[in-house]
Amino acid sequence: MGSAAADAVLPLDASTFAAESRAVVDFLEVYYRDIESYPVRPDTEPGRLRTLLPNVPPEDGEPVDVILEDVRRHIVPGLTHWQNPNFFAYFPMNASTAGFAGQMLSTGLNVVPFMWAASPTATELEGVVVDWMARLVGLPERFLFSGGGGGVLHGSTCEAVVCTLTAARDRVLSSLGHEAILRLVVYASDQSHCTFQKGARIVGIPPANLRVIPTSAASAYGLTADSVRNAVKADVASGLVPLYLCATVGTTGLGAVDPVRDLGEVARRYGMWLHVDAAYAGSALICPEFKDYIDGAELADSVSMNPHKWFLSNMNCCCLWVVSPGLLTSALSSNPEYLNNVGREGAAEVVDYKDWQIALSRPFRAMKLWVVLRRYGAGGMRAYIRRHVDMAKWFERMLDADERFEVVVPRRFSLVTFRLRPRHGGHDDMEALNRKLLMAINASGRAFMTHFVVDNKFVIRMAVGAAMTEMRHVQDAWELVQDKAKEVHATP
Amino acid sequence: MGSAAADAVLPLDASTFAAESRAVVDFLEVYYRDIESYPVRPDTEPGRLRTLLPNVPPEDGEPVDVILEDVRRHIVPGLTHWQNPNFFAYFPMNASTAGFAGQMLSTGLNVVPFMWAASPTATELEGVVVDWMARLVGLPERFLFSGGGGGVLHGSTCEAVVCTLTAARDRVLSSLGHEAILRLVVYASDQSHCTFQKGARIVGIPPANLRVIPTSAASAYGLTADSVRNAVKADVASGLVPLYLCATVGTTGLGAVDPVRDLGEVARRYGMWLHVDAAYAGSALICPEFKDYIDGAELADSVSMNPHKWFLSNMNCCCLWVVSPGLLTSALSSNPEYLNNVGREGAAEVVDYKDWQIALSRPFRAMKLWVVLRRYGAGGMRAYIRRHVDMAKWFERMLDADERFEVVVPRRFSLVTFRLRPRHGGHDDMEALNRKLLMAINASGRAFMTHFVVDNKFVIRMAVGAAMTEMRHVQDAWELVQDKAKEVHATP
Repeated sequence: MGSAAADAVLPLDASTFAAESRAVVDFLEVYYRDIESYPVRPDTEPGRLRTLLPNVPPEDGEPVDVILEDVRRHIVPGLTHWQNPNFFAYFPMNASTAGFAGQMLSTGLNVVPFMWAASPTATELEGVVVDWMARLVGLPERFLFSGGGGGVLHGSTCEAVVCTLTAARDRVLSSLGHEAILRLVVYASDQSHCTFQKGARIVGIPPANLRVIPTSAASAYGLTADSVRNAVKADVASGLVPLYLCATVGTTGLGAVDPVRDLGEVARRYGMWLHVDAAYAGSALICPEFKDYIDGAELADSVSMNPHKWFLSNMNCCCLWVVSPGLLTSALSSNPEYLNNVGREGAAEVVDYKDWQIALSRPFRAMKLWVVLRRYGAGGMRAYIRRHVDMAKWFERMLDADERFEVVVPRRFSLVTFRLRPRHGGHDDMEALNRKLLMAINASGRAFMTHFVVDNKFVIRMAVGAAMTEMRHVQDAWELVQDKAKEVHATP
Repeated sequence: MGSAAADAVLPLDASTFAAESRAVVDFLEVYYRDIESYPVRPDTEPGRLRTLLPNVPPEDGEPVDVILEDVRRHIVPGLTHWQNPNFFAYFPMNASTAGFAGQMLSTGLNVVPFMWAASPTATELEGVVVDWMARLVGLPERFLFSGGGGGVLHGSTCEAVVCTLTAARDRVLSSLGHEAILRLVVYASDQSHCTFQKGARIVGIPPANLRVIPTSAASAYGLTADSVRNAVKADVASGLVPLYLCATVGTTGLGAVDPVRDLGEVARRYGMWLHVDAAYAGSALICPEFKDYIDGAELADSVSMNPHKWFLSNMNCCCLWVVSPGLLTSALSSNPEYLNNVGREGAAEVVDYKDWQIALSRPFRAMKLWVVLRRYGAGGMRAYIRRHVDMAKWFERMLDADERFEVVVPRRFSLVTFRLRPRHGGHDDMEALNRKLLMAINASGRAFMTHFVVDNKFVIRMAVGAAMTEMRHVQDAWELVQDKAKEVHATP
């Protein structure tokens, strides 16, 4: 590939493109083959990379193999390997061959479907693929384009939350006046993702008007309709305006599920926008055995889920569906002269996705999700999800059968939450003990898990769902947990 | 590659990954080789793709070659080909071999650097590469991490605007109270990107408090300090609070430049946040001959530019630099328990990029920009930019030398704005004539340009900057413009 120094930059010369891209494919092939040899979480100190790289970019271009060698030497050893099959932290962030292929096509074609006219089939494929996903997940017809609703692919749940909050807010402010922004109130549970509160702050909801409603073990950490109703009533009585309720199917900390139908009824009663955040568990909803978890979705105004988590669609891809696209587009549209379509005046109505999101420009994400769905098929995806759920079930059974451990919240999907029980009579500092256990597990490099705290309990989260995870990895993790538990119990 | 129907989904089997990824590389190699054979803008009707694809995803997985064949038959013919060297519309959206390689590495590794601990070297590479870019662009030291500031890679300018508006807003509201949101005012010119007004609406600035300040030919459509000062004074006199001023270096419609130093002085005087949006022209600032355009940047609070436009960094990648990261992170941070770092309590301070942006999760964009800078070098990138500027200069000279045409606003970078002059004595409907000319150019499939309207003039925009564009394409475009002008003049 030689030095590029002397040559003019020819960015898309077809044969250079092919040769260098193949070199990257080879690099990644080796990475995937060897991935289990890396500690899942690296042992590195802050600032190390700065000492290895110069302060300025090179003046002359460098060959691709030199760059790849630096990736191998300097970057890879300091990464947390999210694709390592022993990654059980946070939630999974699935890469796949099909997700990668779709991303390559999107990145290679590099079209920008911000308006229909700016890339017609890219816009239309997005409409097709969000409808496909809505049907798979089992959403009511009103979330499909054919039912008067529709979907869009965002980069993240927070973006979906900001856009739907803005739509809900502007619907109310258009009748009450902008001053009413000070009286708007939003509701979510103490288990909701932090992204919701962040989104509410971004759109200008007064911080004092974010209601974080407590949950408890009695409802398996799901919101109850009563608790929401009581909070709403109190706010209405003080002259405030209930705006938006966020329900979660599969919370981040514990995998808890809010009752969509019950909350939908409360939302309807008080004229609130109901959003259902199924970022993680939305993928499981493609299996009939999980569909009860979105019973009542017809009462929601919007639903979102992230195929980049547990649906093999590489970062990033978030499906957002809404019942009333007009509310979204009236809050988010912009029609400057430089985007008017000369030659298409008076043409049939089309979807201009710039008005369904925060940014103007946007990548061709539909290609990625479409390739994933075609390559693996609905049946393949169901089998994939069930494999992880089965592994999580097995891990939960092992914990149940071992008296040293307690499963803290019953597993719903593929997330298992557990902790060491107190030893003799409960005099241990359980937080310290479980914290030590988690540190020992992660320091081994053989698995990476994270934690949560609920009702003052320090809980270890085992989130099964990395793309390469097989039964043997979950078995290894269980052995590791047992070994480390023994060590931790043995040390004073 | 066979049918995946009967097999279990093995999403990252290394050899399947390599084989299927090579098939996609081959596909794209052919696409780039043949790209000039496609009309730049497709001739297609809304809804066509829906008639070609089924309403539901396949139940069984399909082989990659079948999927690629469908991309070739159904998707590619209906795309606007942004990478076609005859694409002169909007602004360029550069793909490149290095940008693609960087995206492949990012997508393949698929790590999520939302916190330092979630992928240390990915976070640190971002810090390194935004500092590299800041130096290249010529930003003052205070925008670098070493100078107390710092940068982040977003997906879009609108995201950068929303985040900095939120930071500016919350700084003011923390002292004046949330009620003051009703009194906040933001300022930009009538040439600013629509994204700015959209961002201001999203963060809850009252629509009545968005000041769109007129510009004129006298200042080459740049804002004047006087006009901003007058608007601000009037608002202050009515008890309003000036919050944020957006200056643009290289506007979308005409490539106009706002005077950063003058506006910085006004912003300082009234305690406003000054943001410099150099989305398109930021790339040109790496050449010393353009650096005057950001003279005064030390008076700004934030600066953004999009390497995905004219800097070979495939969708999407937006650099945002701020002088005071603390203002950004205090407005955007969230620290739920499930993200606390067990084993790193009390460790050295690190950058957690989730607090620099809207979303929690985020892709490893730094890899892409780093590969681009290394592969082409600073010198290569300057030469690349200058090549486009030279081509635009040539096109402008041709227009100047042809009495049928008028260059509407003097070219600053690589955007040329022109129109047909009135023929005999000015009785033509100039808008209709130029609209007809643009339609004829685009209908030919041999070039794609867009338009703008300024001072009631319908202006055709010729934005040079697609990655593959060479002199011969610009010459062809000039011939096309001449031919179509002749046709348009000849028809009644």
